[in-house]
This record gives sequence, structure tokens and C-alpha cells, in this order.
Amino acid sequence: MSGHAFDAAIALQPAGDNLFTGATSPAYANMIGPYGGITAAQMINAVMLHPKRLGEPLSLTVNFAAALADGAFTVEARPARTNRSTQHWTLEIRQADGVVMTGTAVTAARREIWSPSSDAMPAVPPVQDVPVVSRRSRVEWLNRYEVRSVEGSLPETWDGADQEHSRTQVWVRDTPVRALDFASLTALCDVFFPRIWLRRSKFTPVGTVSMTVYFHAGDAQLKAVGTGYLMAQAQAQAFHNGYFDQSAQMWNEQGQLLATSHQIVYYKE
Amino acid sequence: MSGHAFDAAIALQPAGDNLFTGATSPAYANMIGPYGGITAAQMINAVMLHPKRLGEPLSLTVNFAAALADGAFTVEARPARTNRSTQHWTLEIRQADGVVMTGTAVTAARREIWSPSSDAMPAVPPVQDVPVVSRRSRVEWLNRYEVRSVEGSLPETWDGADQEHSRTQVWVRDTPVRALDFASLTALCDVFFPRIWLRRSKFTPVGTVSMTVYFHAGDAQLKAVGTGYLMAQAQAQAFHNGYFDQSAQMWNEQGQLLATSHQIVYYKE
Repeated sequence: MSGHAFDAAIALQPAGDNLFTGATSPAYANMIGPYGGITAAQMINAVMLHPKRLGEPLSLTVNFAAALADGAFTVEARPARTNRSTQHWTLEIRQADGVVMTGTAVTAARREIWSPSSDAMPAVPPVQDVPVVSRRSRVEWLNRYEVRSVEGSLPETWDGADQEHSRTQVWVRDTPVRALDFASLTALCDVFFPRIWLRRSKFTPVGTVSMTVYFHAGDAQLKAVGTGYLMAQAQAQAFHNGYFDQSAQMWNEQGQLLATSHQIVYYKE
Repeated sequence: MSGHAFDAAIALQPAGDNLFTGATSPAYANMIGPYGGITAAQMINAVMLHPKRLGEPLSLTVNFAAALADGAFTVEARPARTNRSTQHWTLEIRQADGVVMTGTAVTAARREIWSPSSDAMPAVPPVQDVPVVSRRSRVEWLNRYEVRSVEGSLPETWDGADQEHSRTQVWVRDTPVRALDFASLTALCDVFFPRIWLRRSKFTPVGTVSMTVYFHAGDAQLKAVGTGYLMAQAQAQAFHNGYFDQSAQMWNEQGQLLATSHQIVYYKE
């Protein structure tokens, strides 16, 4: 335990076969319930801590079935199938109220083979040239990230004007700094404010319904990032009758694509 | 039952609480085991047929845990959580050998609210100006789709030359024609040949590990497509140590985005 708020937030205790207990973290509280990224990180951490885990995370899908109540929860991480080099996980978080999260994950033992350079990072100013968005927020989880906004920042006026696109680019890392790992990268994939706020310049209630993360880097590559920044980009493709999508890319400072992530998000009129 | 091979392939029989039985279909056979798209369609069909289903498919994630053996299987579709307007499903396909597929889905009752036009379809020639790729294949499922290749067709020579990009654009529909629905749209999301074949001009063994579909259209919009074509586009962002990703978009002929889909795919050297 490093003493970092993130480590405290994702800490889990073994509670029987495939079961762990954890608790929501005030340090990562959202407007209602916890930050979705921290819940996703708690789910992948159950896989990381499982004594039968094979390999490293390759993909993760988490579905936000209900708002988590503040307090304790149980995570189930069940290895549904173990192959020679891949392992398939079925995930669930339960509280007194019933199932609050469902999910699946795949872990894999990677081999070092032909790997061309990935899609290039957009041409953006280096991190030291971009000022930090420094405002203390009443939404606690926002205070856990250092964000430097390159493009598509939160609208300054909520005038309801339709915007051309919904793309955001930020340099981002944990604050205080913490060395990157699979759990923190998972949480970072959910760091963007809702695309509809940018597209519409209108503040509307939203909630992520399902999020998927594909990991394109192994543990060694994440360790090499250390406390460096990620260039994080997100944009939507469709807003339709109450749900919009988001696609995101996470590069390290050298422009290597560490993860891609997708989500579908509920929005209100 | 329409007598269409697709309907026969996705047919399921109730087999107890949350359980259905089905079978692999020779008409949709792949090189080894069934076409992944048909397996995904069978899984969403279990949700469609479930007597307790609320709303229409919003998202689906399926994980290919093991090659399906030819023959019978059991699908479990369990409504893990039912809310006022969304329902969360945990999915699994089992054969004698154990779990062969895992997955989750979300169904939702949509409301007609603010829905701007989605990301525009690329500028492509109209379907009637693009010739059909007409070759009878020994890979049966390929014979179930009419494909008109606009860009990024299968390499004509496997010379191992690195290509700039991995983008494919095709006009596509079922053959013989069949009116579009959630199951056939799901299957169509997997219709692309592997991105690595295009990127590398090299024939290498591959296999989808996980696929996610986000539905941006409701039943009425899919019915309106009828037997029309879809403009289907796919490309990869990263190829790293044995796994690459694919992002896909599916538009109707009028340029409305019906679905977006993502997958992560195993590749061999």
C-alpha cells in the first residue's frame, strides 16, 4: 500500500472463492455515486488479485447497472475459461440492493512479435507548454487528476449552441503522481467530461451505461511511463434518442498507443 | 421462420429459466468453427427471445473463449438487473467442453429526444456503381453476404508489403436478401476480413477475442432499411504483440449511423 488515494480506493479483501470485498471511496466521489473510472478499476483489480490469473489484461467491459451506494460491495471475478494463453473472466459487483455492475474481461500472455507503430498521436503542444486546468472542484474525483486541456475543453458558457464536433484532447495524469498500471490506466479511460456537453454547450444529466477498454501495452510498457503524462483524446460519433457513444485513445508522451476505449452513455433532453 | 439460412442459424429453443438451446450452422461455417458474427447473433437472439426482455438492444459485448464445436450448444441469457428503462444481461454459451462464449448486453427503452445527425458517411460511390465481389468461397459464411468493395479490398498478392493504413469500406447485405434486424446487424458488424491481412499483405492466422456492438438505431429504423445495403467501414489503430483492434461503422444508404462496433483480435506472427 503506497498511501496513495487511488491504492486505497481500489483495495480489495479476499472473501472466498472468486470473491472480494471493497468499498466506495469518498476521494473518488462523483456527483451521484462514485466516479465510473474508479469502479472499473476496482473490477480489473479483482482480476489482478485473483490467485488463478493468467497473463495481463487485454480487454475489459464493464456495465453500469445501477448507481453504487456509498459503502461496501462484493466483487465476483470468475475465470469462466482458461486456455493456453488467454483467460476469460465474468465479473459482477453486488450490494445489498442486488447487482450494480456486470462485466467481462480477457487476460492474455503476450508474445513479442511483429508490432508496427500504432496510430500516431495527434500533433499537439508538448505537455510543459499547456497550462494546468487548476480549479478545485466540489466533485471530488476531479481533484484526483491533473488535466491540461489542448482542445475541446468544458464550455465556458452554456448557451446551447450546436458545436461542429465533440473532440477533446488533454494531457492527464494522477495527482498526486502515481506510477501507471493497468488499474490506473483503466480509470483514466473514463476521465473525459460527457461529449454531449461539448457538442451541445448544454449541461444535461448523463451516465455511462457500458465501457470497454482494449489494452495495447503490457506491464513493462506501463511501468516505463511511470508518473509521466498521457495524451488522452475522446470523441463521439452518434447521439441518438438518449444515448451517445465515445471513442477514446490514450498515448504515452512518446506517442505509443497504450489503450483504446469505448463507451455508450445515457443522456437526458 | 422465413426459410432464410440466417433465421435457421439463429433459431433457439427454450430450455428452462434463462436457457435456450441452439446449434452451429453449416451455412455460416468459418475456416475453423462458425463465423463469429453468427455466434454473436445467436447470443443477442437469446436476449430478443427472453420473455422478460425490456426494450431494445443498446450494447452487446461477446468474448470468444473457445472455438465452438460443430453441433448443439446451450445459451444462458440472465437478466442481472432490470431498471425502469434499462436492463442488464449476462450471457454465456456452453458446450460439453465447458464455457465457449461469455458476454454482456444492455437493452433499453429509448425516448424520442434531441438527436442530431450522426458522423457523416464517407463520400463513396453509390451502391449501384460498385461491382459485386463475386467469387464462390469454400468458406461458407462468405457466401451468405453480398459485398461490394469500395476501398481496402483483400490483397491480390500476399507480398508482405506494409500498407499505410488498414481501412476497408464495403457496401454489404445478406444474400439472399433479408430484412435487417438487430440479429443480422450484429452479425454484419463482424463481416470484415482481418485488418492485419490488409495492413501487412500477409496471410496470418487470426481470431476475434472480444467484440462490442453499440446500436444507434431502434427497431423501426432497422425495419426501414429493409433489404437495403449498409455502408460498412472498418480500420485498426494498433497492432501489438499478438493483438490488434478494429473499429467499425455501419451506415444505411441514407447515411444514418445504425451501429458502431469494436473488436480486439488475436494474430500470429
